[in-house]
Amino acid sequence: MKEFNNSGQTQLWFTEYHTPNSGITFKVKETLYRKKTKYQDLVIIDTYEFGKVMLLDGLVMLTDRDEFVYHEMITHVPININPKIENVLIIGGGDCGTLREVSRYKHIKNIKMVEIDKDVITSSKKFFPNLTKTFSKNYKIIVGDGIDFVFKTKEIFDLIIIDSSDPIGPGEGLFTEKFYRKCYEILNENGILTLQAESPYFYKDSVKTIYNRLKKVFLNVKPYLAFIPTYPSGMWNFFLCLKEETSLDVKNKNLIKSFQNVLKYYNHQIHTGSFSLPNFVKKMYGI
Amino acid sequence: MKEFNNSGQTQLWFTEYHTPNSGITFKVKETLYRKKTKYQDLVIIDTYEFGKVMLLDGLVMLTDRDEFVYHEMITHVPININPKIENVLIIGGGDCGTLREVSRYKHIKNIKMVEIDKDVITSSKKFFPNLTKTFSKNYKIIVGDGIDFVFKTKEIFDLIIIDSSDPIGPGEGLFTEKFYRKCYEILNENGILTLQAESPYFYKDSVKTIYNRLKKVFLNVKPYLAFIPTYPSGMWNFFLCLKEETSLDVKNKNLIKSFQNVLKYYNHQIHTGSFSLPNFVKKMYGI
Repeated sequence: MKEFNNSGQTQLWFTEYHTPNSGITFKVKETLYRKKTKYQDLVIIDTYEFGKVMLLDGLVMLTDRDEFVYHEMITHVPININPKIENVLIIGGGDCGTLREVSRYKHIKNIKMVEIDKDVITSSKKFFPNLTKTFSKNYKIIVGDGIDFVFKTKEIFDLIIIDSSDPIGPGEGLFTEKFYRKCYEILNENGILTLQAESPYFYKDSVKTIYNRLKKVFLNVKPYLAFIPTYPSGMWNFFLCLKEETSLDVKNKNLIKSFQNVLKYYNHQIHTGSFSLPNFVKKMYGI
Repeated sequence: MKEFNNSGQTQLWFTEYHTPNSGITFKVKETLYRKKTKYQDLVIIDTYEFGKVMLLDGLVMLTDRDEFVYHEMITHVPININPKIENVLIIGGGDCGTLREVSRYKHIKNIKMVEIDKDVITSSKKFFPNLTKTFSKNYKIIVGDGIDFVFKTKEIFDLIIIDSSDPIGPGEGLFTEKFYRKCYEILNENGILTLQAESPYFYKDSVKTIYNRLKKVFLNVKPYLAFIPTYPSGMWNFFLCLKEETSLDVKNKNLIKSFQNVLKYYNHQIHTGSFSLPNFVKKMYGI
């Protein structure tokens, strides 16, 4: 918008290519952390516009400035559809932002988070204190393979949140029909599965494939959308999966009252509005 | 998402800086047109990802690939709130995309478009044939100053759409309280004013100023949002301004039926959903 002065300083810019032909670029203050972990290339940079940014394999996972959208939307939408959720399983989510949001609900008795990469958890604790705070003690963090956990557990959950990276790299196995089927089996009959699933604008084929896999397993699969400025195209897709034809309405209007003024994105109008899909997205899903 | 090969070819990239510290970047095939017009620097480039792109003073005005969102949302939202709209004034809109959308409605008898920069119209006709097609002959294009037109006209309109560039450069005068007040005066009592007003994510102060000016003039000012990937942050704000407390619901559900399957964004769920605002946006507006 404005004209910029280049004062002769060395400028460092990070660019993420969303496709071979387009991308987003941020001016960088400094690189805070870099580690080739057992699973991925983990980098934390400090930027002028978005604050601290976590990158995995070169892709933006979260930024200080807009992480709230992703974490609120993957969490509060399912919990407000079924206010009886007591047992929650988070697969991935090593930055702890999803755990922070789930832990706001006092009636949720048991939260398990299974993250494969310990370094994501420890570096998030170090560099993103706002993400790693929690509001209850009803949680357990397990460092391990989420797929293994789901296949071996004897527990039954009311909500499973798959908070993974994209279907390339370590997250790949979390996008298979076989995995979704096992999630279905460890959910109770009113249980909900929620997951992030990329941009319908840029990654049409990938998003459609995920949708079709989920539809083979769950009776009711509903896409919903949120504005995430630092994710490709700014239009981000989530799926909410149910075993039965339940209404998607907010069930208990009082449930989030106590922390409504600390949430920055989610409210009950957004809940309903996020299920409104543009025609090109509806067409893509054949709905 | 994927790894790219650089095959040794010269690569040309266009970057728009949305703030001094962040931006969007596209790979360019070629520059198709460049002219310093009487009012602005007009450039048309062909890109790999977004097709042809029109730039004014270095900022993306529209791209072949996502122009539909802006043009459908600035048009169909107001028209579906008041299905009796017959006289429409478009201020700006030289690329003709808004005119295309308004002209879909057979009951709209009189459309006037007042664009200051003739070169925007002629270059859009040459390079964006998809934008410049119309579906009725009930329109008149006037090359002239929209502010002058509004201050001098004796006509009364049912809908005014301000389809301008941002409040810097030639569009500046279209964002003043004085101008909004004059628009109010030439609207009938059920009349609607709609305008685009930037990203609430990046240009908070500017968007708030516009909102406060509109509120001084109109009884009922409603922000609404749409996903526009090539605009800053991907979250774009529009204002709908009414002289009375009218419901924002779609009034005549049959109205858009005949062209619903050619629209790529707007539908009646999107209409309702677009008025759902995230908490940080509500807070910004004090609503």
